[in-house]
Amino acid sequence: MYYFDKRLQWPVKVEKPDPLFARMLQQAIGGVEGEIRVCMQYFFQAWGARGPSTKYRDMLLHTATEEIGHIEMLATAVALNLDKAPVSEQEAGAADGLVGSIMGGGDTKGVINGMLHRHILSTGLAAYPADADGVPFNMSHIYASGNLAADMYCNVAAEATGRVLACRLYDATNDTGMKEMLAFNVARDTMHQQQWLAVIEELGEKAHLPMPNSFDQSKETQKYSYAFFGSAADGTPPMAGRWTEGPSLDGKGEFSVMQNVPMGQEPILGPARKDSYAQKEQM
Amino acid sequence: MYYFDKRLQWPVKVEKPDPLFARMLQQAIGGVEGEIRVCMQYFFQAWGARGPSTKYRDMLLHTATEEIGHIEMLATAVALNLDKAPVSEQEAGAADGLVGSIMGGGDTKGVINGMLHRHILSTGLAAYPADADGVPFNMSHIYASGNLAADMYCNVAAEATGRVLACRLYDATNDTGMKEMLAFNVARDTMHQQQWLAVIEELGEKAHLPMPNSFDQSKETQKYSYAFFGSAADGTPPMAGRWTEGPSLDGKGEFSVMQNVPMGQEPILGPARKDSYAQKEQM
Amino acid sequence: MYYFDKRLQWPVKVEKPDPLFARMLQQAIGGVEGEIRVCMQYFFQAWGARGPSTKYRDMLLHTATEEIGHIEMLATAVALNLDKAPVSEQEAGAADGLVGSIMGGGDTKGVINGMLHRHILSTGLAAYPADADGVPFNMSHIYASGNLAADMYCNVAAEATGRVLACRLYDATNDTGMKEMLAFNVARDTMHQQQWLAVIEELGEKAHLPMPNSFDQSKETQKYSYAFFGSAADGTPPMAGRWTEGPSLDGKGEFSVMQNVPMGQEPILGPARKDSYAQKEQM
Amino acid sequence: MYYFDKRLQWPVKVEKPDPLFARMLQQAIGGVEGEIRVCMQYFFQAWGARGPSTKYRDMLLHTATEEIGHIEMLATAVALNLDKAPVSEQEAGAADGLVGSIMGGGDTKGVINGMLHRHILSTGLAAYPADADGVPFNMSHIYASGNLAADMYCNVAAEATGRVLACRLYDATNDTGMKEMLAFNVARDTMHQQQWLAVIEELGEKAHLPMPNSFDQSKETQKYSYAFFGSAADGTPPMAGRWTEGPSLDGKGEFSVMQNVPMGQEPILGPARKDSYAQKEQM
Amino acid sequence: MYYFDKRLQWPVKVEKPDPLFARMLQQAIGGVEGEIRVCMQYFFQAWGARGPSTKYRDMLLHTATEEIGHIEMLATAVALNLDKAPVSEQEAGAADGLVGSIMGGGDTKGVINGMLHRHILSTGLAAYPADADGVPFNMSHIYASGNLAADMYCNVAAEATGRVLACRLYDATNDTGMKEMLAFNVARDTMHQQQWLAVIEELGEKAHLPMPNSFDQSKETQKYSYAFFGSAADGTPPMAGRWTEGPSLDGKGEFSVMQNVPMGQEPILGPARKDSYAQKEQM
Amino acid sequence: MYYFDKRLQWPVKVEKPDPLFARMLQQAIGGVEGEIRVCMQYFFQAWGARGPSTKYRDMLLHTATEEIGHIEMLATAVALNLDKAPVSEQEAGAADGLVGSIMGGGDTKGVINGMLHRHILSTGLAAYPADADGVPFNMSHIYASGNLAADMYCNVAAEATGRVLACRLYDATNDTGMKEMLAFNVARDTMHQQQWLAVIEELGEKAHLPMPNSFDQSKETQKYSYAFFGSAADGTPPMAGRWTEGPSLDGKGEFSVMQNVPMGQEPILGPARKDSYAQKEQM
Repeated sequence: MYYFDKRLQWPVKVEKPDPLFARMLQQAIGGVEGEIRVCMQYFFQAWGARGPSTKYRDMLLHTATEEIGHIEMLATAVALNLDKAPVSEQEAGAADGLVGSIMGGGDTKGVINGMLHRHILSTGLAAYPADADGVPFNMSHIYASGNLAADMYCNVAAEATGRVLACRLYDATNDTGMKEMLAFNVARDTMHQQQWLAVIEELGEKAHLPMPNSFDQSKETQKYSYAFFGSAADGTPPMAGRWTEGPSLDGKGEFSVMQNVPMGQEPILGPARKDSYAQKEQM
Repeated sequence: MYYFDKRLQWPVKVEKPDPLFARMLQQAIGGVEGEIRVCMQYFFQAWGARGPSTKYRDMLLHTATEEIGHIEMLATAVALNLDKAPVSEQEAGAADGLVGSIMGGGDTKGVINGMLHRHILSTGLAAYPADADGVPFNMSHIYASGNLAADMYCNVAAEATGRVLACRLYDATNDTGMKEMLAFNVARDTMHQQQWLAVIEELGEKAHLPMPNSFDQSKETQKYSYAFFGSAADGTPPMAGRWTEGPSLDGKGEFSVMQNVPMGQEPILGPARKDSYAQKEQM
Repeated sequence: MYYFDKRLQWPVKVEKPDPLFARMLQQAIGGVEGEIRVCMQYFFQAWGARGPSTKYRDMLLHTATEEIGHIEMLATAVALNLDKAPVSEQEAGAADGLVGSIMGGGDTKGVINGMLHRHILSTGLAAYPADADGVPFNMSHIYASGNLAADMYCNVAAEATGRVLACRLYDATNDTGMKEMLAFNVARDTMHQQQWLAVIEELGEKAHLPMPNSFDQSKETQKYSYAFFGSAADGTPPMAGRWTEGPSLDGKGEFSVMQNVPMGQEPILGPARKDSYAQKEQM
Repeated sequence: MYYFDKRLQWPVKVEKPDPLFARMLQQAIGGVEGEIRVCMQYFFQAWGARGPSTKYRDMLLHTATEEIGHIEMLATAVALNLDKAPVSEQEAGAADGLVGSIMGGGDTKGVINGMLHRHILSTGLAAYPADADGVPFNMSHIYASGNLAADMYCNVAAEATGRVLACRLYDATNDTGMKEMLAFNVARDTMHQQQWLAVIEELGEKAHLPMPNSFDQSKETQKYSYAFFGSAADGTPPMAGRWTEGPSLDGKGEFSVMQNVPMGQEPILGPARKDSYAQKEQM
Repeated sequence: MYYFDKRLQWPVKVEKPDPLFARMLQQAIGGVEGEIRVCMQYFFQAWGARGPSTKYRDMLLHTATEEIGHIEMLATAVALNLDKAPVSEQEAGAADGLVGSIMGGGDTKGVINGMLHRHILSTGLAAYPADADGVPFNMSHIYASGNLAADMYCNVAAEATGRVLACRLYDATNDTGMKEMLAFNVARDTMHQQQWLAVIEELGEKAHLPMPNSFDQSKETQKYSYAFFGSAADGTPPMAGRWTEGPSLDGKGEFSVMQNVPMGQEPILGPARKDSYAQKEQM
Repeated sequence: MYYFDKRLQWPVKVEKPDPLFARMLQQAIGGVEGEIRVCMQYFFQAWGARGPSTKYRDMLLHTATEEIGHIEMLATAVALNLDKAPVSEQEAGAADGLVGSIMGGGDTKGVINGMLHRHILSTGLAAYPADADGVPFNMSHIYASGNLAADMYCNVAAEATGRVLACRLYDATNDTGMKEMLAFNVARDTMHQQQWLAVIEELGEKAHLPMPNSFDQSKETQKYSYAFFGSAADGTPPMAGRWTEGPSLDGKGEFSVMQNVPMGQEPILGPARKDSYAQKEQM
């Protein structure tokens, strides 16, 4: 179960409220690379964790719990950036100096054009769980497969796209308070990338490949297990790379290149069933 | 641009049509771990590829194109498994021996209960782009960040959960034809995991960490870049693991453990704006 | 504006409540081929209708208004079919004869397995706006383009898939009351297909092709306007059909067959921008 | 920021694992009446709270934090109920006595038909954030308007439908452990209904009506502010009720009944713009 | 069944077409606080209404039918506001005085930036069922639980957020016609809040609490039924409020405060099943 | 199975990169009228094709394969239009001449306001599968009913709205390269409209009406099969049109007009079940 402390994990300060940056920050809240996603992904992985040791459940709970605090920081940042936002075109035209100066003084009306309108109409100038273009977060993005190694790679992927996003946000603002908050976020993403990779390493170097490692590989069609298929229409071979020759990364095979050709039949499904209400001509 | 060959990449044969297995196969078509996802993900990564070399675009196009053929194989398998499906309860009651025998003879009516009803009502006994519980695939799952290393980890994650799924499907059927098709799919997933990891290796061992590697790390709050934060309410330290001590995986830091404490303020947003239509008491 | 009469457009009677048929009927309420879709599609086309005459707005309002009554009939049918539904497994085991007899007496527990669980848990045994597999209707399916001819074809498409669905539902039940309701629905779909096609005819035979007919065709790349492109990898020509030779259906061209070949360049996007946080190797 | 304790808020025990009840419990996790919804709704209301006092932010944080623990309890219950689940039809046929006995011994194959297939294929027998029919939770259901009274009613509504759901779940199981967990959940929902209503009372009896109470009512078209409009086509008056006569609940008006009649014009939008690509006939 | 009158319920006039206000109005059509939502919610509650009296079905039908007319008014207002909208950047640059003057003459190009692009590209300058940021309405927002009191609170919540929205829209425009239409909408929302509360009152003061009131409260874990749980990590008690002491609002208990502590076990799910394709280390 | 050629089907050139036009082009990629939709729709129709001849599968595969190349062209066009896009407000303020000149020099800051923010934050200046307002494509839009004639009308509808979109895009840009690409797209849409209509013609003129044509029409309630129902509240007859008199388009009936009246009962569902947790008053 869970507890809170009213204070934030890290200071959130906004020097010059900027409703357009509030829109950008939404991507880090409700975007597929955002904090709700990692928070819930780690929680569901923890809550479904099975295995001889509870240490992975433990690790996941620590970081999932930390991530709630990250959503909180970002939501606070959005609210602070919306503090002076215009809520009508008229107001945009007469925007006070603060917002105006952000936009250079001559384009205050552009502010409302660029804002998420639900910030104005639906939330009373606060954050909500949607991305920077207003699309609500969909929980289908919570990856928790029940396979620890696969899940760790899902987590690395989430933190990798998350850190790319945080870097872009860092660059997109001049506000010192926001830059300090984002520098902290970037640092935590660095750590989170590391820790999921550390689990992979701890699972035994490359022994976890291919994922899952609990399926008897003799049952797969091994002839094609380490072959890169070329699909160029004219048979031009793929450009050479680490994946076209040399030992495979799990040390169990040799990479090769094969041209992709039909090994299967042309699928003829036959006439439609009489009761399927296809056209008569199909029966 | 693209071409087709009417024949399938690999033979698709169904010995005993099983409409319940058709439902399961839908997960590999329209599930978030499925083939539409990897196909479209690799295509969008290829179509947006930037960089000094075109080799990654080349590689992505080869495999994206191969994946269209995988959707095709699975869609064909679904249609074949639906060939004898009951389309009404009455028919379910009088199901012919083929379907009946799958269910053991005494439970033919259960077949229609377990089927996806859109297979009966909407598609005329064919595949459609939804998962095994009927939820349509949503294209927000196409990850293509513009950062090559991050995208490769997204691809490993997709193929890892995809291979877990293929293994589960392999086990869930006794049909020889289906097992042969799935053995091929598992093999290709093995290769695809390998090839995305090979790109990561080719990018220079650990030099790609943290992702993105093009953000000046001196700008992040480095004190916390390799610190695992404990969030237990009573301060119990996290269980020890590879991620709590020793050098970080990028070789740039040392893992440590820190108890998570509030470093930020309690956020007080202040009274609501007069024009925000909060309650009067909030103003 | 709108009015109601408490009575239904057509009698809705259920002789033997069948919770599994209630699930099937949901497709006609909240499926993409269902009644909410046509109702709202015709309303939005009417509310946005522009043109010298108001007759199309008039026609659309008549039929949109009729369709509300169809949703009502189906929602009533769902509620009646759920009247005796088991709401727990225990009850399913001891189901009364009515439901039991539907399933043949020996499989009453299968009923709850096959039911939509939100019928039990969320609605109190009533209809809700989702399809037969429980997926909520999404309003992105309301097609209203502002082009009358295009919209009419969208309406024909909706009524065509809708009538296919109604026929399948008709076959899926033995209940006399339900069959009579569905026979009425099928009849109305017959008419609705006819009336949208009648608008197309009234617009002047083929003068509406291609849609839109208000774009100067000399601006399109006319060499390819009536050419069927073959995309077989080995150049096998497409099988002959009405679309491969003879005059086009708008009488403005001659059908021909051309092999699809690249007429464009290989797209090289070049190095990534320095501030895009691609990997360094991409810059 | 946030902390966790590894232990659950309340014991979660499952005597006889039942994969079909696991499906039902999903509604309380990822359904629109479920715990993710209330948890996130209270958090976003707290994080966006504005006003002279911080007491509502405080109250919301307490309960939002409690709700994380409720998702955790339910997710744990789902995993425990899936412990013996069959993962293939063959296994279903030979299901061990435990599951078999739940279904009465003669219908073990029905179990897999009734299960959510993503429990088998995607999660490794664990919970995920979707409802009882497999539809992922969508964050558009997080209501946080910035108006305290409106938000409190949204919270009452959420807890009302949530408690209805919990009662139905309580009835749907015979498992003592599950019944004890759900009895606790029902109790907490009782309290949560009370506390949101208490805020409303504290805001000053009926002074919060209509919501928002910060809009000058003299600006609304007051003639119609307390009139119940009848829409029966034949003018039959609405049946009498508390809403048709007597003082309004905010004490500011008298209820009356008016027949709904068109007070507006027939909307004629006129010809379409030449550049809108409507049909020529529309221009 | 249903009827229409071509005329609108209330006049819709737009003095100065403003495509940016058209965007804002979309929130009242396809937003979660909008008119499609209440219209469909009341209809589905009516169509599923059960009980000894038909008066609630009657009441719901009256208002649901009225709400169709509200969608119609708003859709008409959107179309009228889009009448002079620029449909290309070039046109935006040379926008006629009318639109230009709205934006102050110097920023006509900003208009197209701020518009919903589907207004230009997909609808031919008309309304469509999406919100002010372009997100289509999703029918999962139709709450109809089968419990009358719970549904009434859902309706109050919908009208509360709806009236907040209408007030914000009223303020966001200077157009006299639009202000008159919105003043009418605000008045109707006032009434609709009242009427749902009147049903609650009619159901017997507080006898309807907790919802549902048909579950035997002795079965809930009553010790916690009126206890506000504190979740602060350091045990700081919640701030005092109406919900921390005094009689509960249903008169059945006394509010108290309890610190939230784990009353449950640490959940250990145990090793993964051999056939679940977790990693070997998890088995 | 499938092959690719690295080159594009048709040249894609952008003379003056315009990030706002990149946004518009997204509608043709991930909009419901866009290329992913037609591509996947034709593929799923082909993969599920049943009937005595394989010619329709053949035809569908040719065109589905062509459509992948169209997505590729548009994705390339989006990436090229984003080449000079500002990625922060500061940069927008100091935008180089190229972007600035598009907007007329005085409004460079408006560019970032009008852009899709995921182009900046999530994709690294590349296309992604969403529409012009950022809503991801949802695969529920893939219509494949198993009825050939119905599917052909779905395809005509898709190409009709698609061509309307392409015409609007053609008008919205001044860029010669973009105009040439779009002229090609418009031409192909012309052909695709023709070819689906050609299938309908080949199926035997009007013999395919009503769809499906495999349901015995004597079973429908034929009295209402060719009757246009008037729903005006005051009985005003519908305006006369091709659909109100004369032979029906399938030659099987005569159009007539009937006033819509209740032919059914008032639906009284009766008291709620005791275990449904409706309010006590409903039981």
